[in-house]
Amino acid sequence: MSKKIAVLLTNDFEDSEYVEPVQAFKEKGHEVTIIEMEKGKNVKGKQEKIEVVIDESIDDVSHGEFDVLFIPGGFSPDILRADERFVRFAKAFMEAKKPVLAICHGPQLLITAKTLEGRDVTGYKSIHVDLENAGANLHDKEVVVCQNQLVTSRQPEDIQAFVQESLRIIG
Amino acid sequence: MSKKIAVLLTNDFEDSEYVEPVQAFKEKGHEVTIIEMEKGKNVKGKQEKIEVVIDESIDDVSHGEFDVLFIPGGFSPDILRADERFVRFAKAFMEAKKPVLAICHGPQLLITAKTLEGRDVTGYKSIHVDLENAGANLHDKEVVVCQNQLVTSRQPEDIQAFVQESLRIIG
Repeated sequence: MSKKIAVLLTNDFEDSEYVEPVQAFKEKGHEVTIIEMEKGKNVKGKQEKIEVVIDESIDDVSHGEFDVLFIPGGFSPDILRADERFVRFAKAFMEAKKPVLAICHGPQLLITAKTLEGRDVTGYKSIHVDLENAGANLHDKEVVVCQNQLVTSRQPEDIQAFVQESLRIIG
Repeated sequence: MSKKIAVLLTNDFEDSEYVEPVQAFKEKGHEVTIIEMEKGKNVKGKQEKIEVVIDESIDDVSHGEFDVLFIPGGFSPDILRADERFVRFAKAFMEAKKPVLAICHGPQLLITAKTLEGRDVTGYKSIHVDLENAGANLHDKEVVVCQNQLVTSRQPEDIQAFVQESLRIIG
């Protein structure tokens, strides 16, 4: 069944961590909505390979409209977590126990939303201490699935495993 | 008296947070050494205003050669803290109680070095929860001086206060 996937994205995202999962989600018939501060804006990947047009402003969407949250990595999550609207949006998915898929620096948004206490996670090497300090159980593995709800991976090399487990969870 | 200041810097540093403090330090007669992975490499600020040539490789320096550590912000500290050599270097200054000056995302290196428990700090908004989770006492102020040793600030707008307190601590 087609699911509605919200993607939180701004400049300096890790190109492949956006492109490859989104392509796989769309191929399975899921509907993807890219959300940032400003609808219609172009955002660029940090490798400067990809430009993406923002579908919706965070002000015009509600978490209730979506089944799944996807947070690509790069520096995008750190920029977004300085804005309380994105933190609240991510927190709502975690509290509703909807599927949340976060790769690389993606879990930074979940740290700021204070949602990782006791959860099994992984993430990019630079945020490992932050994840442990947030009370999460850190695993240095290509993909970690927690309570059949939260899927996390470390880096671009893990994308295949990340997509496979994400698609399994999305159902 | 002239002091030897080590600066940890790589690509995507916040341009003004490097340029303005370093200029002020040099004007007071202090000696500044820019350290990254590779000596002679050019690194660029995230605003693309500034390029800096690296003076020394992290492999060729010891913390004992320097009196002070300065960590500019932007995404540079997050890149550096994925490399254990920079984490150890920063940790050595904190353990030796030498002056450490960190602005914006600079304190991320000190989090990964596990040196902020019980310390008074500030930092860029996006890392506030990380600082609290690291056991630091977070203050939302333009500059925080802890035990006359650790100087932290939040963002480019705080540079003047950051430089003033940094110069006072350096002596």
